[in-house]
Amino acid sequence: MLPSKNSELNQRSLTTQIQVMFFDTDVGGGVHNIAYLRFVETTRTLLAVQLGLDWKWMQEQSIFPVILKTEIDYHTPALVGDLLDVTVHLGEATGVRFWCHFKIIRPAGGTMIVSGKQALAFVKVPEGKPLRLPKTFPTPFVPELKT
Amino acid sequence: MLPSKNSELNQRSLTTQIQVMFFDTDVGGGVHNIAYLRFVETTRTLLAVQLGLDWKWMQEQSIFPVILKTEIDYHTPALVGDLLDVTVHLGEATGVRFWCHFKIIRPAGGTMIVSGKQALAFVKVPEGKPLRLPKTFPTPFVPELKT
Amino acid sequence: MLPSKNSELNQRSLTTQIQVMFFDTDVGGGVHNIAYLRFVETTRTLLAVQLGLDWKWMQEQSIFPVILKTEIDYHTPALVGDLLDVTVHLGEATGVRFWCHFKIIRPAGGTMIVSGKQALAFVKVPEGKPLRLPKTFPTPFVPELKT
Amino acid sequence: MLPSKNSELNQRSLTTQIQVMFFDTDVGGGVHNIAYLRFVETTRTLLAVQLGLDWKWMQEQSIFPVILKTEIDYHTPALVGDLLDVTVHLGEATGVRFWCHFKIIRPAGGTMIVSGKQALAFVKVPEGKPLRLPKTFPTPFVPELKT
Repeated sequence: MLPSKNSELNQRSLTTQIQVMFFDTDVGGGVHNIAYLRFVETTRTLLAVQLGLDWKWMQEQSIFPVILKTEIDYHTPALVGDLLDVTVHLGEATGVRFWCHFKIIRPAGGTMIVSGKQALAFVKVPEGKPLRLPKTFPTPFVPELKT
Repeated sequence: MLPSKNSELNQRSLTTQIQVMFFDTDVGGGVHNIAYLRFVETTRTLLAVQLGLDWKWMQEQSIFPVILKTEIDYHTPALVGDLLDVTVHLGEATGVRFWCHFKIIRPAGGTMIVSGKQALAFVKVPEGKPLRLPKTFPTPFVPELKT
Repeated sequence: MLPSKNSELNQRSLTTQIQVMFFDTDVGGGVHNIAYLRFVETTRTLLAVQLGLDWKWMQEQSIFPVILKTEIDYHTPALVGDLLDVTVHLGEATGVRFWCHFKIIRPAGGTMIVSGKQALAFVKVPEGKPLRLPKTFPTPFVPELKT
Repeated sequence: MLPSKNSELNQRSLTTQIQVMFFDTDVGGGVHNIAYLRFVETTRTLLAVQLGLDWKWMQEQSIFPVILKTEIDYHTPALVGDLLDVTVHLGEATGVRFWCHFKIIRPAGGTMIVSGKQALAFVKVPEGKPLRLPKTFPTPFVPELKT
């Protein structure tokens, strides 16, 4: 899952294209509800990297983005082999918490598959305390985080 | 994941006990946010079976419970080896939609791990149309469903 | 997934019972090939705990069992709702490597679902070097491991 | 996960590039052993599509590729954020069975992560009987399959 389309004008959002595999579906015939969250997580993580989050920095500092809340609506089931556009947009931030809004669309037909949002925070492990976001959030995205 | 505790007085809820495995965790040190939804789905499915939903009936009729919406709050990360109580309670129903409320608790310490709710409907596959719930929902749970 | 049956005579093996959930299946109608490995891992881990492996010890020492090789044969697909017996037997050890043999059976009918074996070693993280097994392996299972 | 590199000279193999996500890792610090099989399955499926296998045809005919056997060796753990090359090569066929050979490499350093092979067959669902491969296998890949 690699970034396939991206608005140059809006670095705060990213769209990646994924293709539904057999392991994403269940016997009911469509994509299992949990699989969509994997699609969203991949795109959200690549958006964070685009915004400056660094894998090495996270591990050295033991600071990781942690999900506090997810709300997800399932509109139409996707099917095996479907090509889907997964878009994540970095939204508002309040205190330690910032929101990512997401939607998954089947471009052939323009069908909305799922939509929703997630609240996240940066957490220092293993203490587990959420860190205050830098005033300039999300630019630069990470380096000003203080424990 | 088998039912381990169940209130005889309240057949509309079920608690199962699970132990966190390595594949439930990630490099951040805790349980990955997606794994909790697998725990909830297992308990919710066993609750449906307890209420009379039959695996064979579902497949023969091509009628499956489908999730329309999930809201989940992550309170405290669970860790590898943790024994967790996963409770699902069948809540209110409106038209085609019914709600399941869930929480995951670490009984050692009584720590709330996650909580949330899911809206579901019974859907005839492949038509995809949600079915009207029987007036006596949830008892009997399934046989009165009409396509 | 909790231990449900266990030969008192042979502490080196463990059988757990699992029920196949929707998320274990795919659109082909049966259990997806990857899901069986989750079943085996759960039983294998509970066998290790039965033999004395301690979750806290693993994390404090940063010593974890790591899989070096898996061979798995798929005989018959399991179906959603199936109750399966997952058996893991601790086999021979050579140097740093020990083998676990596994099989998954549908007791209703006695059908063999999958069988196979895995080679594992204990590895000190992050160095990544496999540790020599204690002479008394597997009893006591872990405490004599030296880095 | 989209095809990123492909030998034009050898349509029987495909290499895709994937990036390791948090949900691919576990608390041990590396990629969980089961996640690699998801990487391989994605590449193997895209190779099948490249060779002419059609998603719609599979569903209409209820004919799916089914794994009969997997052998996988784990050489070096991959880490979160790693960019990996996943290569699958369609190998020999005998009767109903054909083999896919795979390897996952971290190009930065040329490190071998995992290697192995899988035996597959085409199976008509729900009868479950493997189908004889066409004499011209793998070209054309599927249409000559007889039930």
